Formats: sequence, C-alpha cells, structure tokens
Amino acid sequence: MSNIEKITAEDKASILVEALPYIQEFYGKTIVIKYGGNAMINEELKQQVMKDIVLMKYVGIRPVIIHGGGPDITSFLKKFGKATEFISGLRVTDKETVQIAEMVLAGKINSEIVNRLNRLGVHAVGLSGKDADLIIAHKKLAEVHDGSDKVQHVDIGYVGEVEKINTPLINDLLDKDYVPVIAPIGAGKADESFNINADYVAAEIAGALQAEKLLLLTDTKGIYRDFEDKSSFISTLTQNEAKKLINSGNIAGGMIPKVEACLHALDSGTGKACIIDGRESHSLILELFTSQGIGTEVVR
Amino acid sequence: MSNIEKITAEDKASILVEALPYIQEFYGKTIVIKYGGNAMINEELKQQVMKDIVLMKYVGIRPVIIHGGGPDITSFLKKFGKATEFISGLRVTDKETVQIAEMVLAGKINSEIVNRLNRLGVHAVGLSGKDADLIIAHKKLAEVHDGSDKVQHVDIGYVGEVEKINTPLINDLLDKDYVPVIAPIGAGKADESFNINADYVAAEIAGALQAEKLLLLTDTKGIYRDFEDKSSFISTLTQNEAKKLINSGNIAGGMIPKVEACLHALDSGTGKACIIDGRESHSLILELFTSQGIGTEVVR
Amino acid sequence: MSNIEKITAEDKASILVEALPYIQEFYGKTIVIKYGGNAMINEELKQQVMKDIVLMKYVGIRPVIIHGGGPDITSFLKKFGKATEFISGLRVTDKETVQIAEMVLAGKINSEIVNRLNRLGVHAVGLSGKDADLIIAHKKLAEVHDGSDKVQHVDIGYVGEVEKINTPLINDLLDKDYVPVIAPIGAGKADESFNINADYVAAEIAGALQAEKLLLLTDTKGIYRDFEDKSSFISTLTQNEAKKLINSGNIAGGMIPKVEACLHALDSGTGKACIIDGRESHSLILELFTSQGIGTEVVR
Amino acid sequence: MSNIEKITAEDKASILVEALPYIQEFYGKTIVIKYGGNAMINEELKQQVMKDIVLMKYVGIRPVIIHGGGPDITSFLKKFGKATEFISGLRVTDKETVQIAEMVLAGKINSEIVNRLNRLGVHAVGLSGKDADLIIAHKKLAEVHDGSDKVQHVDIGYVGEVEKINTPLINDLLDKDYVPVIAPIGAGKADESFNINADYVAAEIAGALQAEKLLLLTDTKGIYRDFEDKSSFISTLTQNEAKKLINSGNIAGGMIPKVEACLHALDSGTGKACIIDGRESHSLILELFTSQGIGTEVVR
Amino acid sequence: MSNIEKITAEDKASILVEALPYIQEFYGKTIVIKYGGNAMINEELKQQVMKDIVLMKYVGIRPVIIHGGGPDITSFLKKFGKATEFISGLRVTDKETVQIAEMVLAGKINSEIVNRLNRLGVHAVGLSGKDADLIIAHKKLAEVHDGSDKVQHVDIGYVGEVEKINTPLINDLLDKDYVPVIAPIGAGKADESFNINADYVAAEIAGALQAEKLLLLTDTKGIYRDFEDKSSFISTLTQNEAKKLINSGNIAGGMIPKVEACLHALDSGTGKACIIDGRESHSLILELFTSQGIGTEVVR
Amino acid sequence: MSNIEKITAEDKASILVEALPYIQEFYGKTIVIKYGGNAMINEELKQQVMKDIVLMKYVGIRPVIIHGGGPDITSFLKKFGKATEFISGLRVTDKETVQIAEMVLAGKINSEIVNRLNRLGVHAVGLSGKDADLIIAHKKLAEVHDGSDKVQHVDIGYVGEVEKINTPLINDLLDKDYVPVIAPIGAGKADESFNINADYVAAEIAGALQAEKLLLLTDTKGIYRDFEDKSSFISTLTQNEAKKLINSGNIAGGMIPKVEACLHALDSGTGKACIIDGRESHSLILELFTSQGIGTEVVR
Repeated sequence: MSNIEKITAEDKASILVEALPYIQEFYGKTIVIKYGGNAMINEELKQQVMKDIVLMKYVGIRPVIIHGGGPDITSFLKKFGKATEFISGLRVTDKETVQIAEMVLAGKINSEIVNRLNRLGVHAVGLSGKDADLIIAHKKLAEVHDGSDKVQHVDIGYVGEVEKINTPLINDLLDKDYVPVIAPIGAGKADESFNINADYVAAEIAGALQAEKLLLLTDTKGIYRDFEDKSSFISTLTQNEAKKLINSGNIAGGMIPKVEACLHALDSGTGKACIIDGRESHSLILELFTSQGIGTEVVR
Repeated sequence: MSNIEKITAEDKASILVEALPYIQEFYGKTIVIKYGGNAMINEELKQQVMKDIVLMKYVGIRPVIIHGGGPDITSFLKKFGKATEFISGLRVTDKETVQIAEMVLAGKINSEIVNRLNRLGVHAVGLSGKDADLIIAHKKLAEVHDGSDKVQHVDIGYVGEVEKINTPLINDLLDKDYVPVIAPIGAGKADESFNINADYVAAEIAGALQAEKLLLLTDTKGIYRDFEDKSSFISTLTQNEAKKLINSGNIAGGMIPKVEACLHALDSGTGKACIIDGRESHSLILELFTSQGIGTEVVR
Repeated sequence: MSNIEKITAEDKASILVEALPYIQEFYGKTIVIKYGGNAMINEELKQQVMKDIVLMKYVGIRPVIIHGGGPDITSFLKKFGKATEFISGLRVTDKETVQIAEMVLAGKINSEIVNRLNRLGVHAVGLSGKDADLIIAHKKLAEVHDGSDKVQHVDIGYVGEVEKINTPLINDLLDKDYVPVIAPIGAGKADESFNINADYVAAEIAGALQAEKLLLLTDTKGIYRDFEDKSSFISTLTQNEAKKLINSGNIAGGMIPKVEACLHALDSGTGKACIIDGRESHSLILELFTSQGIGTEVVR
Repeated sequence: MSNIEKITAEDKASILVEALPYIQEFYGKTIVIKYGGNAMINEELKQQVMKDIVLMKYVGIRPVIIHGGGPDITSFLKKFGKATEFISGLRVTDKETVQIAEMVLAGKINSEIVNRLNRLGVHAVGLSGKDADLIIAHKKLAEVHDGSDKVQHVDIGYVGEVEKINTPLINDLLDKDYVPVIAPIGAGKADESFNINADYVAAEIAGALQAEKLLLLTDTKGIYRDFEDKSSFISTLTQNEAKKLINSGNIAGGMIPKVEACLHALDSGTGKACIIDGRESHSLILELFTSQGIGTEVVR
Repeated sequence: MSNIEKITAEDKASILVEALPYIQEFYGKTIVIKYGGNAMINEELKQQVMKDIVLMKYVGIRPVIIHGGGPDITSFLKKFGKATEFISGLRVTDKETVQIAEMVLAGKINSEIVNRLNRLGVHAVGLSGKDADLIIAHKKLAEVHDGSDKVQHVDIGYVGEVEKINTPLINDLLDKDYVPVIAPIGAGKADESFNINADYVAAEIAGALQAEKLLLLTDTKGIYRDFEDKSSFISTLTQNEAKKLINSGNIAGGMIPKVEACLHALDSGTGKACIIDGRESHSLILELFTSQGIGTEVVR
Repeated sequence: MSNIEKITAEDKASILVEALPYIQEFYGKTIVIKYGGNAMINEELKQQVMKDIVLMKYVGIRPVIIHGGGPDITSFLKKFGKATEFISGLRVTDKETVQIAEMVLAGKINSEIVNRLNRLGVHAVGLSGKDADLIIAHKKLAEVHDGSDKVQHVDIGYVGEVEKINTPLINDLLDKDYVPVIAPIGAGKADESFNINADYVAAEIAGALQAEKLLLLTDTKGIYRDFEDKSSFISTLTQNEAKKLINSGNIAGGMIPKVEACLHALDSGTGKACIIDGRESHSLILELFTSQGIGTEVVR
C-alpha cells in the first residue's frame, strides 16, 4: 500500500469528494451482504471487509450481514471425528452435525464478526435464525439424478430451506442503529435446527427487507459468457439472460446457486443483486463507491 | 399432576384471582433470572422454567435471562480431548477452551433456550456479552492460598470478570417486548473472549438494569443458619447477616459465590436478590406469585 | 372456599401456568363486558367481578365495562313517588324519569364500580354517553302488537337507541391504561338524555371498537335448545342457528334482546359474543382463562 | 344586546384584534374555573359561561371546570324528604345525603354542563373525584365555637377535605384536547364518598396543575375594603393584605372561604386567583380578554 | 377609531364570543394569503394586516404568507439606472433585473414582513422558492398578439412559472408553529432565479398544501358583473360563472390573472379562493371572522 | 487534477476507508462554518466548498453555514452611488447602507449558496438573523483611539453586535435534516436591521449550539508565532497563548477579530475553533478527514 502513502492529502480530499454521488445514491438504503469465501479466511481481507461495512454504516447505509461457515464447520466436524458425506453438493447432516454446525456458525464465526465490527466502532448484534424466529425453515431434500430421467428426492437430514423471514427484529435493530450479523441457521417448527445455504438466506432476507442491493462476496471475478474466455466477462446481466446462461450451461457448478440466489432476491423485491470478488481489497467499497464497480450485477 | 385434574374450574379461577396482588406487585418491573443447575438438565424442569418465564412476560414483567453452561462445556471439552484442570474452583481456560465454551454457551445452550421460549409464544433473542459490547470484561486471576498468609494471584487464562455492562441493547429489546437471553461471555478489549461465572454476570446485569429482583436458580433449598440443621432454614437475610454467615463459615463452598453475587446485586441497585430451588416445579412462579415463596431472599 | 386452602402452593403455581395459553389468546385484545343482574346485587359476586376485571387488565387485556341500572332505578323512582309503567317491556320514561335514571346510573352505580376497581389497583374512569358525545342516541318507539296484524309504534318518552358510538375517548383512555366504565345514557341532539338498554349499548360499543369478545353477564346459565330440557344446553351457536331459535320461539322473553345484542355485535365486527352466568363465582375468569368456559357463545 | 347590532363589522374586526395581547398572554396556559352561583341558575348566564369556556379553548387556553351543586342538592334532598341541618355553615351529611349529593353533582349537574359544552363544539368529559382517584379526601370536622375560648370539632358525616389531587388523568385529557368538568366528590380510602366545598377543590386542583389562574365565579362584585362603601372596591390584593382584611373582619361571612381558597391556590403554585362576578354577562371573557378586567385579583 | 373607544367592555366581550363559530370553522386549517397592493404601502394597513395574521395564528389557523414586490422593485431598478420594459404586461427581465428583483423581494420586503410579525409575537420565517427547492420554476414566454390570429411567444428573460411546489419545508415549519413568509422567486434547474407572479405562486402553494382558503389581498372591492354598475357586485361566484365572465370580457385587465389564480387554486385542491379588498381595515379578520365577509369568493 | 485520474480505483477505495476514523470522530456532531474570503470569489473554490459541505452532511455531520458579504456589498453600494467610509475598520452604516447590505447578504449571496447546495443534493434553507429572531442584536460603537490614552466610542450607525442567539429554529431545521445557511444580519428591538461581522456571528452561533467545532475559512494559512518567519507556523494554540500573542502584537491586524471570535466561541462552549485556509482546494475535507489537517486550531 506504499502507493497510497505517496498520494497527497489534497488528492485524498478530492477522492473523498469524488465518492459523494455514490454515497448519496445509497444513503438510507438497506444493503444485504453475504460474507463468505476467502474474505473470511485471509486476515487482511477480513479486516478490510469489516472496515468497509463500518464505513458503509457511517455514510448512512443500513448494512445487514449474513455469513457462511467457511471451512470451520468441516474442520470442527473432523475434530469430533465426524466424517462428512455430500449428496448432490449438500452435506448430509445428522442431528449431531447440525448441532456442531450451529455451534460453529453462531458461537464462533458470528461472534468473531460481531466482535471485530464492535472494535471498529459500530454496535453489531449477532443473530441466528432462531432469534425471534427470524428464519423459519423446513427440511430440504437433495435432488439426485440417476441415469434415468427421474429425479429422486433424498432425505439428507437437517439441511433446510427458508419458509419465512420474520423481519421485525432486523428492522427494530436497524432503526436503533445496530448492525445485524446473521448466522444461516433456521428454526424448524418442531424445535429442530436447520443448516441453510447462506447465499439463499441472504437472498431471502434481501427480498423480505426490500433491500436496495444484495452483495454476494465470492471467490470469483463474476460471471463470464464463456468461462474460458476472460474477455467475455459480464458486468450487467438481466434476469432473462441469466436464466438462459444457466440453461445453456455457461453458468455452471458452484455459480448456479449464487445466480439462483440473485434471481430469487430480485423476484422478491430486492433492487439489484451483485456477485463480487471478495478476494479484492475493499471490494465492497470498490463496488459501491467508485466508478469502477466490480463483479457482475444481475438486474430486472 | 393428577391432583390438579381433580381441582374444579371454579377453584382454578379462584386461584388465578388469588395471584392478583403478586401480579400487581411485579407489573412493569425488570426481573433478572440466572438459569442453571438441575433446571437446565431435567427435561420436565426445563420446560417448566420456560413456561414460568413466558407467564412472567405475559403478566407484565420484563424478564432477562442469564444462563450458565451446565455440564455441556465439560462434556464438549472431553469430546475434543481437552482435559479440564481447576485452580481454586476456576477452570483453567486456554484459548481453545474459551472458544469451545463460547460455542457451547452461545451456539448451543443459548440457542436452545431461545427456541423453547419462542415455541411457547414470546419473542426471545439470544445475546452474548459481545453483542453491542454488552459485557466488557478483563482477566480474572485465581487466588491461590498456599500454607502461608500470602495469597498468590495465578493467571488461569480466559476467565473473566465484568468491567462494564452496556445496557442500551437490553433495554431496546425489552422496550420492543423481546425476552433477552444472555450467555456469560465477556468481550475483552483486545478481541479476546472471556468465560465468566454466570451468577456474577446476572448480578452485574441486575444492578446495571436497576432490576426489581435477581433470582438465582440453584440446586439447593437456600441458606441455612446451620447447614446440618434443616430447621435453621433462612427465608430472609439482610446483607449484614449474610456477610457474618460467610465470615463465620456457615455459608461455605459453592454457596459463597452465589451469596456474593446477591450482595453485589443489592450494592449496585437491585431491589432484592433470591436464591431459589430450581429443582422444585415452577419454582419461579412459586416464588413470585404465591404466598409461600421459596428459597432465601437477601435484602438490604 | 376451604377447598382452595387445601391446595398446595405447588399446585397453585401449576394452575397459573395452565392458564398461560388462554392469557396469550387474549393478550392485547379489547373485551367488552356488560355488567348487570345478580352480579350487581350480591356483595360477594360484585367483588369477584371487580377482581376478575382487574386481573384481566393485568394480564394484558383492554377491558371496557358497560353497566345496567339494576333495581336501583326502580327503587329511586319509588322514593320520588314516581309510578313505573311498562309498554312492551320498555319503561315509559318522562323527563323526570330519565333524569332520575341518569342520576342513578351515572351518579351512583357507575361511581361505585369505578371506586371498587380503583381500590383494587387499576385506574378506572366513569363515563356516560354524554362524555365527548360517546353515545349519540335518538328516541326509540315501543312496538305494540294489538290483536290485529299491525304493529303500532308508541312514543314512550326518553327511551333511546344508539345512533353512533364515538370511540376516540374510549381508545384514548385505553391507550393510557385506564379502565373505562360506561353508563348507558345517550346524548340526544337537542340536549336531551336517553336511557338505553345496556345490552344494546355494550353490543354497539363492542362493534365500534372491533372488540375480540362481548361478554354479557346474565342471570341464566345460557341458551338451551329446549329451555325445559337442561340437557339441551348450547355451548356454541352460529348466528344462523340463533336466528332460527328466535323464530321458532325456543329463544324467548328476556333472552331475545340479549341474543339480538350478540347478533348485532357480531354483525358490526366483534369477534365473538357470549352470554355467561353472572351468578357463578369468577364467571369472567372461568370463561376466559379455563378450559371449561361457561355460558353460550354466539359465533359467525 | 341591540347595541351590538349597531356596531359595524369593521369595528367588530378591530375589537377582535384588540383582544390579541390578552389572547397571547394566556395561550397554552391552564386556567381553572370554579363554576357556581347565579351563573348556574340563570339560563342566559349559563349559556354565556359555556360559550366563554368554548372560546377560551379555541384561543389556546387549557380550561378545567369545577362546579358546585347549587340549589339542586337541597331541592333533591327535599324531594326525598330529608331535612337539611347545618353546623358552622357545613351541611350535616349522613350516608344517604352524600349519596344524593353525589347523584345530583355527578349524575345531573356535571352531565348537563358536559352536554352543553359538547353542543357548542368542544369535547368535554365529566369527572368526579373518584375517576382514577382524582380527588383523595378524608373527613372534615366542623369547628364549633361555644361562648368559651375553646373550639370543638364536631363530626358532621361525609363532608370531606382534599388530601391529594392525582393530576395524571386531567393532564392526559387536556393533552388530547378534552375539556375536563369535575364534580367536587372525594374518594375516601374506605370506599366512602365525601362532599367537598367546590371552591376548595378548585383551589387544590389549580395548585396541583400549577395553573396560570384560578377564577372563582361568585355572586358578588368582589372584595371591598369596607363592604358598606362601594367606592372601596379592591381590584388587586396581595396575600398579606387579604389575610389582614380577614383578621380585621373586613372580609367576612361567605367571602372568607372564597378568599381562603384563593390564598391556598397561590400557596400551592397557582399564578393568580380571582374572585369574579358571575352575574355579569360573559364575565370570564371580560376578565381575561378585555382591558377592564372585573372582580378582585389576589396575587403573591 | 374613536367609535370603538365608546363601546363598553361588556359589548366587546359579546363581540368576541360572537366570533366563536367562525373561529371554530377555521381551527387547525391552513389559509394561504397573497399579501400585496396598498396593504403593503400604507403604514396603517401594513400593521393591521400583520396583526390580523398574528390573530389568525393564535386562534388556531396555520397561515402561510406569499408577498409580491410592490413598487419597490421598479424603484430599485430605477436607482440602478435600469429602464423597465413590459411586454404583454410582463416585465422584461434580464439577469441583472432578476438579481435586483430577488434582492428586493427576499432581502428587503420579505425581511420586513418577518420582522414585523416577530415583533407582534409569533415566530415568522422568511423563505424564497430556493429554500429547500420550495418553488421549482421554468421560463414563461410572453404571449404577444399582433393584428393577425396568431399568438407569438416571446422570450422575456427570467420570468418564470411554477413547475413544482415542494411542501415538506412549509409543513415542517407549520408543524413547529412557525409562520412561513414566502418570496415569489423560483429556482431553475440550471442555477438561475425566476421572478414569478405572486398571485400564481400563492395559488400553487394553496393547492399543494390543500389549503382551506386562498385569500388574495387586492386594491379592488372584488368582482362586478358589470364593472360600471356598483350594484352588480358579486359575493360568491362558481368556477363556471367566473370562466364565462372572463370570456364575455366582464372580467378584464388586471383582474384576469387574479381570477385565473383563484380558478387554478380550486382546481388543484384549495377549498375556496377569495379576492378581498386590502384597502379595508382588518380585511382578513373581516373576511374570516365576521358575518359580513368581504370581497368575492370563488367556489367550485 | 490529472494526478487523481492516475490513482487506481483500489487505491481510491483504500483512501475512503482511511478516512473512517475521522468520519467516526465527527458523526452526529454540529460543525459551524464561517464561509468567506477567496472561497466566495473563485468559482472553482466555491464549488469545492459546497461539495465539501454536502459530503459533511452525508457522513453524518450537522453543518451550519454563516457567510459574510465579500466584495458584493461594496460593489452594490457603489452602483447606488453610496461612498463607503470606515472608522476603526468598521463601515459607517446609515439606514440606506444597512438596507443594501441586507439585500445583498440575504437576497443575493445567501440565496446563491442555498441554491448551489440544493443542486448538489441536500436541502439547504437560507436564514437571516430576523427569521424567528435568530440573532437579536444591538448597536456596536466604534472605538477610536486619538493620540491620548482615552478611547472614544463613536456611533457609526447600523453596525451591530450579538445580544442573543435563539437556537430553536436552527435545531428544528437540523433535526429535519436541512442545512441552515445564515446571513449575518441582526434584528434590533425597534425594527431596525444591523450588519454584524460574520466571524463573530459564527462564533456566537457555535457557542449557542455547543458545536463540536468552529471553522473560519480565511485567506491566510493560519497563525504564525512570527509572521515574517514562515517556519513559525502554529498548528495548535491554547486560549492563553493566543491572548499572549495578541498582547505581544504577534497576532495583529485583520487576524485579531478572527482570533477573538475563536476565543469567544471556546468560552461559550464550542469544542474547538480553527482558522483554515480557504484558498486551498477542499480545505474543509482536508481539515476534518485527513491526518494532515490545515490551519491553526485554538483549544482550551
């Protein structure tokens, strides 16, 4: 960062003023951030994301954070001697597994994010989907494709999907200037916990809050028309185009659920949904407050 | 409970009306409950305590719950293959130990209490001391008495004591009719977590909220002037008498920190502090809403 | 009540908790009570009804009381040497009669209810229909059936029917936690007072407030399909069934206006309307907070 | 009033504007009016006082009315065949007498004032001292002077004096723009009613509300230094002078309690207290909004 | 005004009470006043209008003042050596001219009105259309009729017409009890100022505020069916009749824009629009608070 | 500014985040800015100051602007053919002069600032000291030193000094998110206007608002211990030191009133007072949001 040190204070002041139109655009708006990937592992990136969120709060944005579990869940399961099995990309989750996942998500990762934000000068509050029944969930079955045309639905335990988001707690906290940090654990109707994909949770919450933007921090630069051809990078994509790219197979693999989350967020009332590269320094600020923007934006 | 079934509806109605003066006494008041011991282990007692809290909420009380960790922490440490060492009754707590304690407290026990309360019809919100810097803590040294007169202070790691309670988050939640459920984890100034005795945390929070009452659920009937003589049970005790009984050794062992918590709560502005027997059915309701009361009350 | 004294504190606590689902059901709801009959004469019943209302208030209900005149009006008229004449069940009411009725209703009965409630620990406020034009009324003519098919409408003086309920005063008082106690006097547009049937006033007020329930305290157990056959008692009745029973003559005499009041309350937006036996101890609490319920409920 | 008809609209407009400084002086202020005497008997005066109060309300004053019983109580007692006995100017008041007094005050006079005010376009609410325990009272003994120096205190029944005014109900109503009209009935601690001198009640309420002014409508022009000498009329009197005139006997008879009420009102925080002539047309408006003023003002 | 001095205080009090129905009619209502003409020149009239406005405020009206420029603008232009040219009755307004107009309107006339009102005891706040973009305007072209049928539109510089009224600032000030005084300067989108006809501005503001009344102070008695025949004066006129009188030429010259302003105000939601004679003493009070009324009222 | 264009978006994002601690420091604080000098003349500087203020607003500061008159007053006086005479540095100000000054300040300069700010996306409201009696002033006499020891006080007309600042209007506007822009015109008690030194007005307003900071934009770099020696520049100065430098003559000439304004602001409760160089680009942002700071800060 030696470059920055060479920049004069005068130029820095100009740069701050240059950001004004972007700051004005998002003033008073709710922005939902899915925090995950490398930005949760690399210490420097971690601290940058935290600062970005604090800055967003201070320039008048209402940020809401949903985090994933990163490698911590798998690592803790290992410590407990639990093997991890996946079916169609979903972790088979027995009662003990979801218990450990919840402990890691709500009792370790969430807590660490909250603490880091507070140390930087906001009032963050950690939540899970159980708090005030924030995320009501039910069981999600895995879809298994055997050779035939039929899709089998397989019970893989306590993997959930969102049934309802109860927004009053989030809004009560936002109205009192707290920063909500939410672990993607859903409350089942029979006392059970569900582990839910954090991208989907973020999309559902963005929709329920009628957020201005959903920002998904990922470990890719965004969406390419042709993944092999780096020059085919897409900055802005309509919902229809996105669906076509999924159908044509150009959006594939781990990108599919992310794009589906974006589509769902837009369908349920979010303004825009962006897949941004969490491996970049200050990616949130770059996306929101500079002319450059980063990543791929999905719009209506 | 077959007895109750024999009681006529008319008598039940009379019993409800009989509770009116007690309900009036606590209407609108804040009551802090330390939830722990057998009442956290026995399924029937668990459910009863939860119902008691929900009833308290519905008859106009502002309940605040602080819970301990029960045997879960030790059991999880064992699963991780961590041996547990105690010095002067305090668990030696290295970084990994406090991490596991936090995961168990905030990610398992707290979450379960929140979920049970919500299923019974209130809006509970789980918190730890890190949320909005609710509990600021610093390291507590163990006092070790060797044969000599001197007391040695030994560093036993991430065992904390409360430095400051920040009440705004609790009050914001109470004002919006949520039931706060708090794990006794403290936030250190250098990002570290501290495990703190839940009785002390409850006492500090009761004082900071200027609560009407602090109720410590324990596994004893209360305080005896002479523990051997069951007829010497004490219903009400002044602060001075309590101090004398500690000095004379009549209050001893595990009861000392509980009585000290009561004394501290009174010193910092709580109205009354009670040690009650969590092994009794509906002990909270018995204490608050019947002429009998239970346990030992410490008053100014 | 010696039975109750034999019930242990533990059982009493259980009974309180047993009431929780009922308390939750009515929390924050408005319930309109027509207070009359024996429950206004018998000292023990009087005091029980008052306690029931105070308990309702403390467990979160918004109770509104409308009272009748009981035998007091007739007795005072007698003291004044006024003979009482009835036409079709309605008291012929000259100017002096309505004056005395108003004095008895607003200056004696209302005042006594208010005072009793206040002594038990709520803040009751006595109102008549004149306060802030709460009840706007006009003259009601008596229907006289001579032998022929024709119905004659006879002017019997200052007997009124409700033209409009102005709810702001009631709501302003409820919002500030007062218990409104209302005498069934209507304000005419030309300065005159009208005496109005209290059941009808209660029904109109329940409708205007969109109350959860209207409870009419009567001196009967409720409605029978066949009044002679005690086994034909009806716990729940739809509006249509009620109309049929009136047409068929199974509901007759003094029960007709009560059932009509219930029907009108339902039509104008009240949730449920119940005729309950005010001669029972704690009949309101029995009805609301026990599984037994009492009396006959008229529903949509 | 034919004079007024000759006044041009232009002059009328000028007169309205002339009142501006007086209107500004009392804007937002609480003024307590004791309504009694001829102004309660003469139909024309009655209606004028009502209009005066409504005008006061519309130009921004917070008026509070306390009324006496006038000749109605005696007349109703007569109808009931109760003889009226006085000791030291106070009515001997048995249980039946206070009951009739309360019925007349709260159920007839109060109700009529409320209705008249409402017809003129405000929202008046009738209260007695029992509403929300507005006036807590205890028994007042009559002082009997036999020839000797000693004063005997004689129990004359349910004649009360104010023990405490509970202002929240009055303020809640004023804040919601209602006009409170209060009957001088006090609530005793043992369920009994007390009849209280309305001048004293008005003085106590003025003090409790920290009113700007107490206006006592009387049937005299005010206070004279020498009652025989009409030229000795006093427009403004200090508390000390008033006390001297009582001691010297220049203020005597029925004027003494009125002046004592004024002195008490000033002592307890009322700004000014005025004895004004209720037999004059629009005496309240004359006093408040013209340069003339009327009656005698007692000041600190 | 010697007449008024002969009127007794009693008659004055009666006159105040006589105004009550008018005061009630306008209580809490917004009334927009276009202040201009002789009432801005004659010192006595000036002071009377100011007092009228202050009285309006104190009897519960929400007055909003829009003022014209009177002869001051022309006189200042002269001092600057600027000749004034008119095309179709509109002043040709170059950049310097609009600058001087704005200085005179916002920096002299507005300021003087504000100061006078404040001295009389209200809190007036001076605004121009630039404050919080209160009046957004664009250029208005002059319509020039040469002999032919065609109308030519001629650019005469910075003469504007209203594009949008932003009411929040006015309402925020009214809600806090300030009296807004507005200069008819509009803000263009490219930083330019526009001078706008004050009658039109008043009409637009009355409409945007959904005012109860628009009062245009003029130097005529109002509208005549036949201007030559003083007996043909019109007190009330419908919109349709007004349009007919314009088409027939009976409303002509300077009266046309005033009547058009009235018509526009009614179209955009104002209750009534009145042209009143500002040369009369206390014309505003005469119009609002006496049975006489003055001027011509245009209604739907 | 080509340099800035070379800075990468990544570096720009870092620079924004770097400003976070400064943004946090001033969040929610009131900062009073005296706007004058070159920054009011140079078009580029003008626009920069406006953007700086808008940015301040959007990052949570409550800015209040007081502006001077710059060369405009003198230039308009010239146009009017008024010669300008100064006594002891104060303009001799007759009635016509103060009239023109007010027109220029309130009707031209203020209006332009308001318009520029609004175009950049805030809601600015122009005020003068007359609005809601914001600045109450009285005449200031010039101090003339002849050769002798005596100081003569000379009446120079409508030059004023602040008697009282009425803050409610400013706070009402700030609470509703408006940016107040204030012309330094004072309201005299006898309807007269006073022209007041804008530095002093800013200091008085900063004190009355208990502002966090007063920023005086000047045409110098700040204060030097020895004006000749550029290396003696002072970044921070205590009140005592400042007084000494005035007494010793090191602070002299036009800098004296500025330093006196700072001292007065501190005395009346402002946190800090800074003299900053308005000739620098983005001087406000430089001062507030970079580590460099500029100008001289006077502290307690």
